[in-house]
Amino acid sequence: MIFINNATIITQDKNRRIIDNGAILIKENKINDIDKTKDVIKRQNIRNAKIINGENKVVMPGLINTHTHLAMSLLRGFADDMPLEKWWFEKIFPFEAKLTAEDIYWGTLLGGLEMIKSGTTAFFDFYFFTDAIARATKELGLRANIGVPVIDAKTPEFATPRHALAAIPQIIKRHRNEPLIDFSIAPHMIQTTSLETYKKCKKTANKYNLILQTHLAETKGEIKYSIKKYGKPPAELLVRNKVLDKNSIAAHACYLNSKEIKLISENRVKIAHCPTSNMKLASGIKPLKELLAANATIGLATDSACSNNNLDMFEEMKFAALLHKINRQDPAIANAQLILDMATINGAKVAGKEKEIGSLEKGKKADIIILDFNQPHLLPTHNFVSHLVYSANGADVITTIVNGKILMEERKVLIADEMAILNVIRRKYP
Amino acid sequence: MIFINNATIITQDKNRRIIDNGAILIKENKINDIDKTKDVIKRQNIRNAKIINGENKVVMPGLINTHTHLAMSLLRGFADDMPLEKWWFEKIFPFEAKLTAEDIYWGTLLGGLEMIKSGTTAFFDFYFFTDAIARATKELGLRANIGVPVIDAKTPEFATPRHALAAIPQIIKRHRNEPLIDFSIAPHMIQTTSLETYKKCKKTANKYNLILQTHLAETKGEIKYSIKKYGKPPAELLVRNKVLDKNSIAAHACYLNSKEIKLISENRVKIAHCPTSNMKLASGIKPLKELLAANATIGLATDSACSNNNLDMFEEMKFAALLHKINRQDPAIANAQLILDMATINGAKVAGKEKEIGSLEKGKKADIIILDFNQPHLLPTHNFVSHLVYSANGADVITTIVNGKILMEERKVLIADEMAILNVIRRKYP
Repeated sequence: MIFINNATIITQDKNRRIIDNGAILIKENKINDIDKTKDVIKRQNIRNAKIINGENKVVMPGLINTHTHLAMSLLRGFADDMPLEKWWFEKIFPFEAKLTAEDIYWGTLLGGLEMIKSGTTAFFDFYFFTDAIARATKELGLRANIGVPVIDAKTPEFATPRHALAAIPQIIKRHRNEPLIDFSIAPHMIQTTSLETYKKCKKTANKYNLILQTHLAETKGEIKYSIKKYGKPPAELLVRNKVLDKNSIAAHACYLNSKEIKLISENRVKIAHCPTSNMKLASGIKPLKELLAANATIGLATDSACSNNNLDMFEEMKFAALLHKINRQDPAIANAQLILDMATINGAKVAGKEKEIGSLEKGKKADIIILDFNQPHLLPTHNFVSHLVYSANGADVITTIVNGKILMEERKVLIADEMAILNVIRRKYP
Repeated sequence: MIFINNATIITQDKNRRIIDNGAILIKENKINDIDKTKDVIKRQNIRNAKIINGENKVVMPGLINTHTHLAMSLLRGFADDMPLEKWWFEKIFPFEAKLTAEDIYWGTLLGGLEMIKSGTTAFFDFYFFTDAIARATKELGLRANIGVPVIDAKTPEFATPRHALAAIPQIIKRHRNEPLIDFSIAPHMIQTTSLETYKKCKKTANKYNLILQTHLAETKGEIKYSIKKYGKPPAELLVRNKVLDKNSIAAHACYLNSKEIKLISENRVKIAHCPTSNMKLASGIKPLKELLAANATIGLATDSACSNNNLDMFEEMKFAALLHKINRQDPAIANAQLILDMATINGAKVAGKEKEIGSLEKGKKADIIILDFNQPHLLPTHNFVSHLVYSANGADVITTIVNGKILMEERKVLIADEMAILNVIRRKYP
């Protein structure tokens, strides 16, 4: 049992309740009670609980990163400030071609450590060497959905449709005892993956009841390619072919026409919004206002540290809000509460897990982070939600709890030997 | 004497030299030597020096914030996500009208602490109650230029042109023994301050050899106002009237036509670029590319925590780079080195102090910050400059040195009692 008391709790529940002087009792992997501290104490026996003093701290749901490639943390700062094609073909692809399963394991550990230290408790990954990603994720105690990559363009054999899709049942079987890890099928994008392959992926996804995640409508080049090859832009193409539906996540979705916005919303396709990556690569700006008006479900995401160049979801929230304000020349849009929702409860909806995570409510999984608000940049506290979106950063997170287990406490990582991992990274990737 | 050794030093000198395994010897308030650690040891006697181990750390010039209003930290999160006029007239102005000199003192302490903790060592401030700002700045050991506000619109009597300008010699005299504090004259903006007042301000500035700083071309409304009243947009108006020249700083400068860009560059008017504030208030986007092509001198700035909502210059660097990339749909512009220059050596040029601060070179003032690079989000280190701009944040700064004095070491503020100040803030501004 863990008892967090005297804290300001941002529940992100249906009423977006903020509890002053609140407490949470965690039993096993779940939130057993949450309310004013005095009320929880009145009705619960907390004698054997580990006590966490929440004074001058903010307690909130762990952040959910709906699209990343953790192992690409190895490419952080490897290629910046260059045109997209040059970035891909001259720098990223040649580097990636040399990566081994062991590299992916270490890269995922590195990215996972960064997530723990910046308050992300659940994420969607998508990269080569699924088993290595799963192994690192499991060792760090994070909640994850790992996409098995499928790609037609020049690629390692195991990522070709034939091999990748055939491997799915074995992958699921190998990791069936890992309660925090799910898998998905991850066709790469329309320029590297044919419509036929997309359809095969969706068929396999349906067979095993898996989410399908893909890159969609990230760049103008992609739209042009799709229209030229298929006569339709990619969102329309993939929705009309029933590849994208309510069990699908489209990452980026910068370029959507009004027909596509309607299709995506009607078919309840989920969206992972990556504003920082889209800005850094200058790929495009999502029509957020129209998507929201159409009631689309949008989660927030960092993309990889190779195009960001970190995995800090607090920073991502600020970029999301400010990008849309300046883009529409309207300071009132993309308000703080809406953006915080994207990073928490709406991220859970994207994952189809809104009954389990994304808010702090009785019975939900204990994915919880605690921020130190006793700092100059977080005072005074006129508005806690504003501070989380506009003033905080990942380093303000002092404690990270996933599924009832404390992964980091007072900035010290407990689940793994952080310094040993960083030493390996420094030695292997100088 | 302070001896920092075995560090990666980002000098920001003329050649943008990066020294691996480098050392800096600080004597009194200056950099006495800087080179490879072995070379500095060979030629210097460091026996009585305080040693700072720079292993896995990055040492760089303290950041220079060329436009802020520290005391407005008291309004952090007080008003967000609303139209600009509503923000000003319904929220900010009424709150400001009640602020006393004591409030400004505490607000400046709060903002100053945030700067120390996020690596800013010098700044331009601009707010009511000059003496209170100077007192707090002095107590924190920061380097500052404090603007004496001048305004025609409804304002406290001391900020009216007659009183404010008459008070200048006394203000200078009262603080003449404070080597880190300069003053400037700060007419507010063209909508609240007449051309006549601007001219008087410039006359006084010339008389006492002071910088003139002002808000310029921040919003479309300001441009319209100026054209309607004076037949010219504000930059053209103020340059042609010799108010803005090489001893002037224009904050924001979002809206400049090509004639104005030419005028600003030819007259060497300095610019303080506030991308985060401009995005959050949706005011506008500076024509950065054209200004750079015209060889304008541009420093970086956070503006106040009321429109940002923090004072983190590392975050500001990332916003600057990414805003211009997405705005021009070109990932190659606003590269990391250019943005780092804005926050360091070019900030020093804006302040007219490029011979004293802004880079780490022998003989320059010891304004130095040290970042802990032994962290997941800063590895591997393919590119240090990229990491500073795209991956780091203010919390990575562990040691802050101004004028040879250590203000913070290993995240502990030495120059003031941080917790005592935060307790006062929490009590006075609940």
